[in-house]
Amino acid sequence: MQSVVRELSKKKTIGLVPTMGFLHDGHVSLIQKALKHSDIVITTIFVNPAQFAPNEDLDRYPRDEKGDIEKIKSAGGKIVFIPKASDIYPDNYQTYVEVGDLSQTLEGASRPSHFKGVTTIVAKLFNITRPDVVVFGLKDYQQAMVLKKMTHDLNYPIKFIIAPTVREKDGLAMSSRNKYFSPKQRPESLALYFALKTAKEMVKSDIKDTSQIKKEMKAVIQATCPTAQIDYIAFTDFNSLDPVKKIVKNTICSLAVRIHAVRLIDNMKLL
Amino acid sequence: MQSVVRELSKKKTIGLVPTMGFLHDGHVSLIQKALKHSDIVITTIFVNPAQFAPNEDLDRYPRDEKGDIEKIKSAGGKIVFIPKASDIYPDNYQTYVEVGDLSQTLEGASRPSHFKGVTTIVAKLFNITRPDVVVFGLKDYQQAMVLKKMTHDLNYPIKFIIAPTVREKDGLAMSSRNKYFSPKQRPESLALYFALKTAKEMVKSDIKDTSQIKKEMKAVIQATCPTAQIDYIAFTDFNSLDPVKKIVKNTICSLAVRIHAVRLIDNMKLL
Repeated sequence: MQSVVRELSKKKTIGLVPTMGFLHDGHVSLIQKALKHSDIVITTIFVNPAQFAPNEDLDRYPRDEKGDIEKIKSAGGKIVFIPKASDIYPDNYQTYVEVGDLSQTLEGASRPSHFKGVTTIVAKLFNITRPDVVVFGLKDYQQAMVLKKMTHDLNYPIKFIIAPTVREKDGLAMSSRNKYFSPKQRPESLALYFALKTAKEMVKSDIKDTSQIKKEMKAVIQATCPTAQIDYIAFTDFNSLDPVKKIVKNTICSLAVRIHAVRLIDNMKLL
Repeated sequence: MQSVVRELSKKKTIGLVPTMGFLHDGHVSLIQKALKHSDIVITTIFVNPAQFAPNEDLDRYPRDEKGDIEKIKSAGGKIVFIPKASDIYPDNYQTYVEVGDLSQTLEGASRPSHFKGVTTIVAKLFNITRPDVVVFGLKDYQQAMVLKKMTHDLNYPIKFIIAPTVREKDGLAMSSRNKYFSPKQRPESLALYFALKTAKEMVKSDIKDTSQIKKEMKAVIQATCPTAQIDYIAFTDFNSLDPVKKIVKNTICSLAVRIHAVRLIDNMKLL
């Protein structure tokens, strides 16, 4: 990969779309976005063990290498990089990249070593593929902000693009983990989207108090999925991730909810 | 610097020599070594605050930018990069690169956050200058091993060269910190070199027990500088830094000693 890139970069600009595979239309949109900002796009597929805690779903994370390659091709992606875990983390591996404060809240509070794994693999992929442009999805909002910070702090000469969340027709944010739901459970997965839409409507009606909005969101979630377990519902400034009490411009609401043991995340800009 | 490198790297290979300035013949030898392995050499001068603890000598670390540039020129260096601390660590900076086990012993044990600062600045300089080759001196032995590990673990496509220590005529390892000694103190700074030479001689005489060698080294240090404070004397495998009890092939002896409040380090391969 590195020698391919060394030659390639003399004549073309490179776009990078890092993924964990099992691609859906959200990923396709990232590849298309990258193609608009670079000559050739490298899509990487790597289910990164370093970002999963021991109790998480690393082993059952869905995989479909053949289908992925077809989707990448049809999106216009020309290069796929699918490394082995033992090549990425060989014996005696011991180097990690960490972003401080931004990694500590929200997802970072629920999944303590998660972002350390994410920033490390992405730094490695940056060094392997040397992109001019990288594209991440807004669906993983905090991930995008942490990685943008890492890219900037470490002086990577890479344009960082965050692409909008792609949703199913009914509003569910696309995610490889949606596959875990049985047809019977699937409607209940809309709890997050319904709650976010409710928040957005409330803000439109000039209700700006986050505790009032949060209470209503909780009710919507319980009504949609009575067994839902809410991990967090947070209102933060889009860029700094600082908590917001009263909705102001650039406030984003993000949440994590367990629906039938599947941990989903979603977010929506409220103003 | 990044746009210079972007154009340059299309036609030439780049060598990097990161320094903290106040250059001496040791640095000159690094630049010359880099020139043997690349078309053009970038020397960086940056006294990196992140690798100094609050009680260390950041503020009085010697500087001579004008003299440095002359020395770089005469060594054949064509590019100097001298960033400001506020550009390298702007407000709200929060990303660090850390190597695990290798950073914990020896210097890392005495200076707990030191290597975190070193690996972070070097990763940043790698991303800014995109070298094909980097050269570090063996004088900072553990630093070289930690950085080599970081370079490899994070998949930087960079050839990592460790150049031999350059010594004054009397044996003192060249260091910008040697400037701290008064003419009267200067002879006592030879304590480290004398101790290492003693160790080497003992091994030649087939004495392989490190506790016996260490005892003799301590005596030599006290004899050369009665007020010396020994931080550590260590015998380790050259590559793994694992401690060695009986000298075997690839054992290196490294030590840190305070001579009149100046903390010096030195090392020598014993077999």
